[in-house]
Amino acid sequence: MLVLITYDINITEAAGARRLRRVAKQCVNYGTRVQNSVFECQVDATQYVKLKHLLLKEIDEEKDSLRFYSLGNHYNGKVEHYGVRRGIQVDEPLIL
Amino acid sequence: MLVLITYDINITEAAGARRLRRVAKQCVNYGTRVQNSVFECQVDATQYVKLKHLLLKEIDEEKDSLRFYSLGNHYNGKVEHYGVRRGIQVDEPLIL
Repeated sequence: MLVLITYDINITEAAGARRLRRVAKQCVNYGTRVQNSVFECQVDATQYVKLKHLLLKEIDEEKDSLRFYSLGNHYNGKVEHYGVRRGIQVDEPLIL
Repeated sequence: MLVLITYDINITEAAGARRLRRVAKQCVNYGTRVQNSVFECQVDATQYVKLKHLLLKEIDEEKDSLRFYSLGNHYNGKVEHYGVRRGIQVDEPLIL
């Protein structure tokens, strides 16, 4: 199934930049970065549980925000993209 | 239906910050900001077409990225949130 992962990592402190890098690196192991803080991951149920567990270990739930959207297996036509496609370095600090 | 809108607006130039504000303000008319550049919008088919049209008028397709994910009408259990929930000023410049 396709799972969309979106996150806001609070980088006002140095530790935040580290969390940002680590969250992105975990996501890259399971999917594709489609925007600065948006990943699309093809996972089965077991992988999904594991990925959630890994990401929850990386974020600070008092400062960061992490969202998962399950798009199921039939998502063609449910996703539309406009504008630039980015090949983004996962550890590149990004200004939005 | 629930539509998820995610965007990356290139703000390396002043015009980008203006596009960022205008995109967020359009989205707010149709839904809720759940993360810095992520909105959840409850729209019918007509509203969806209109919102897409409005947002495509605001972005610069050479510099920005805009994605739409249709989650349909039955999305309970498809969306999970962890961490802070943000009440975000739509015109607040955001550093990610």
